[in-house]
Amino acid sequence: MPEVQPGAGMAADIAEQPAGIARLLEAPHATAIATVAAAVVARRPKHVVFVARGTSDHAALYGAYLTEIRLGLPASSSSPSAITVFGARPDLSQALVVGVSQSGGSPDLTEVMRVARASGALTVAVVNVPDSPLAEAAEHVIDVAAGHERAVAATKSYVAELQALLMLIEGIRAGDGALPAEERAVLETLPAHAERVLADPTATELAARYRFAARILTTGRGYAYPTARESALKLMETCYLPSLSFSGADLMHGPLALAAPDVPVLAVVGSGPGGASMSEVLGRLTERRADVVAIGSGEVPGASARIVIPALDERYAPLLDILPAQQLALALAVARGEDPDAPRGLKKVTATL
Amino acid sequence: MPEVQPGAGMAADIAEQPAGIARLLEAPHATAIATVAAAVVARRPKHVVFVARGTSDHAALYGAYLTEIRLGLPASSSSPSAITVFGARPDLSQALVVGVSQSGGSPDLTEVMRVARASGALTVAVVNVPDSPLAEAAEHVIDVAAGHERAVAATKSYVAELQALLMLIEGIRAGDGALPAEERAVLETLPAHAERVLADPTATELAARYRFAARILTTGRGYAYPTARESALKLMETCYLPSLSFSGADLMHGPLALAAPDVPVLAVVGSGPGGASMSEVLGRLTERRADVVAIGSGEVPGASARIVIPALDERYAPLLDILPAQQLALALAVARGEDPDAPRGLKKVTATL
Repeated sequence: MPEVQPGAGMAADIAEQPAGIARLLEAPHATAIATVAAAVVARRPKHVVFVARGTSDHAALYGAYLTEIRLGLPASSSSPSAITVFGARPDLSQALVVGVSQSGGSPDLTEVMRVARASGALTVAVVNVPDSPLAEAAEHVIDVAAGHERAVAATKSYVAELQALLMLIEGIRAGDGALPAEERAVLETLPAHAERVLADPTATELAARYRFAARILTTGRGYAYPTARESALKLMETCYLPSLSFSGADLMHGPLALAAPDVPVLAVVGSGPGGASMSEVLGRLTERRADVVAIGSGEVPGASARIVIPALDERYAPLLDILPAQQLALALAVARGEDPDAPRGLKKVTATL
Repeated sequence: MPEVQPGAGMAADIAEQPAGIARLLEAPHATAIATVAAAVVARRPKHVVFVARGTSDHAALYGAYLTEIRLGLPASSSSPSAITVFGARPDLSQALVVGVSQSGGSPDLTEVMRVARASGALTVAVVNVPDSPLAEAAEHVIDVAAGHERAVAATKSYVAELQALLMLIEGIRAGDGALPAEERAVLETLPAHAERVLADPTATELAARYRFAARILTTGRGYAYPTARESALKLMETCYLPSLSFSGADLMHGPLALAAPDVPVLAVVGSGPGGASMSEVLGRLTERRADVVAIGSGEVPGASARIVIPALDERYAPLLDILPAQQLALALAVARGEDPDAPRGLKKVTATL
């Protein structure tokens, strides 16, 4: 039997993402999302509650920003333990409750979904496994159709979750569930953009630079903040590198003290208002002589390296910005002698009650 | 002029907490909180949105658990940038919006409060500086009355914020704003409990054990999760120790891979349902031969040290559980040659737009 390269599974998952983006834009997937969006419009929820854990919680955080900015509805992230451990029964009768999970197999998320549905909430499961318990508990199901994920660390399912939430929310915003032509036109450019971003060797080359790092900071604001969080989680899961992620604003409240010349900083900086709002914290990081590597379309004066992403409206950027961070996590894990396909202590389905 | 001991200010702030708890229970503070609670009852909000940053955001997270569990209302934590950077205008007309801030001086929180109030939300500022911009922007103000904080790292203002939120929410639950006699009776035992917890030398002694640690994990679930988050922030602010905090459930999703024999774990474990729900993750940590130090009233088999807190209902425990973590942060900072009263890169008021 030929020896399998460490990380071969994660590399294959990462490489499939451009095709995955294109797939979700076509029938039957796009039509299914539009149908769910139309059902949401018909119910006119007053607020949106996201329920998720781990990587999917970062997709949910992106969904929360989209909800507040694009729909003008209050969004929140549920703490399942309030319901599953402490018996809370919040009134969710005016809520859209969206459960996001690659496997759809977490018992606590499924329980929250059941409680929400029983209290009259409109429930939607966004999953990569459509015959999962979470999907069965929800009234509506969106299959993100990323295909079987080889590595334990989630990559292609994350981007698919981001895209499904974007399509769902833009469909709701449109008023009839259908993705507006201009949104679709931008999304149709993403597979080619993603191919080009993945062809850039900069992220993989950075692994050598970070090989001996003892910690890393990641930061971003607004739509870029979920990318900062997910980048940190990938580095922790695959490289066991302590990775501290903060919104640009929270970094100014205390954790800036962690920045030092021997601490790399991964800053996700777009070219819209979110990126512009990072200028103060980036200046403070430079004052502290931190080594800043920037991902995104925004200019970052003083950055020691930059991974340039095509300039799109910041709400699309998360689908591209995460790609080099995934490549970095893969390359750094391999450089450090780890196998990112089977990290220690990590299971694909996490059964927390 | 006599030389001032490094950390003397933080030590004094920590020591004042029992008196601070007693003070907030008395008039005029308790009466002012009851008046605000009665105003909330009269408005019957459908959900509660918390707005805060840094340490105060951990108090807000505690408030969110209380809201869902004790009031049965959906709670959320606002991302200010959605409003201040991206121009989101979520409909908050049925919301109670609670801004929590020691200084009341963050422009972004103040802007969120103004937008919320203009959209018809009932607004409450929970602050330690009652003539601050945040307080001026809100309809109602709760002064947590912790007194001037000497150290940049917040300690006594945090516990005061927790207590003010508890008194507010229990007053709302009571239906007339007044703190029920049984709640008051438990709260009146807290100053003496806090004195005893602060007199326990275990946390300070742990500084020697952690002096050479390169990172630390903190964890807890439910009401104990804000304590885990705040403990991590204190260690980062004062000791620059990379401190990764996860809910017990999220720790199982990936970051468990970070646990190893050379990584200390601070686990906040009460003796109620939240503590009981930690047993699986604690078992997994033991399997990975992590060095677990437990704070709380719950038994933790296999812990290498335990800081015992009196067994109270878990909703009161956060006011006591954080005290040894503050002592640890202080002692470890001094052991590492730092001055926790004036950490590098940290300002008392953080002005993020």
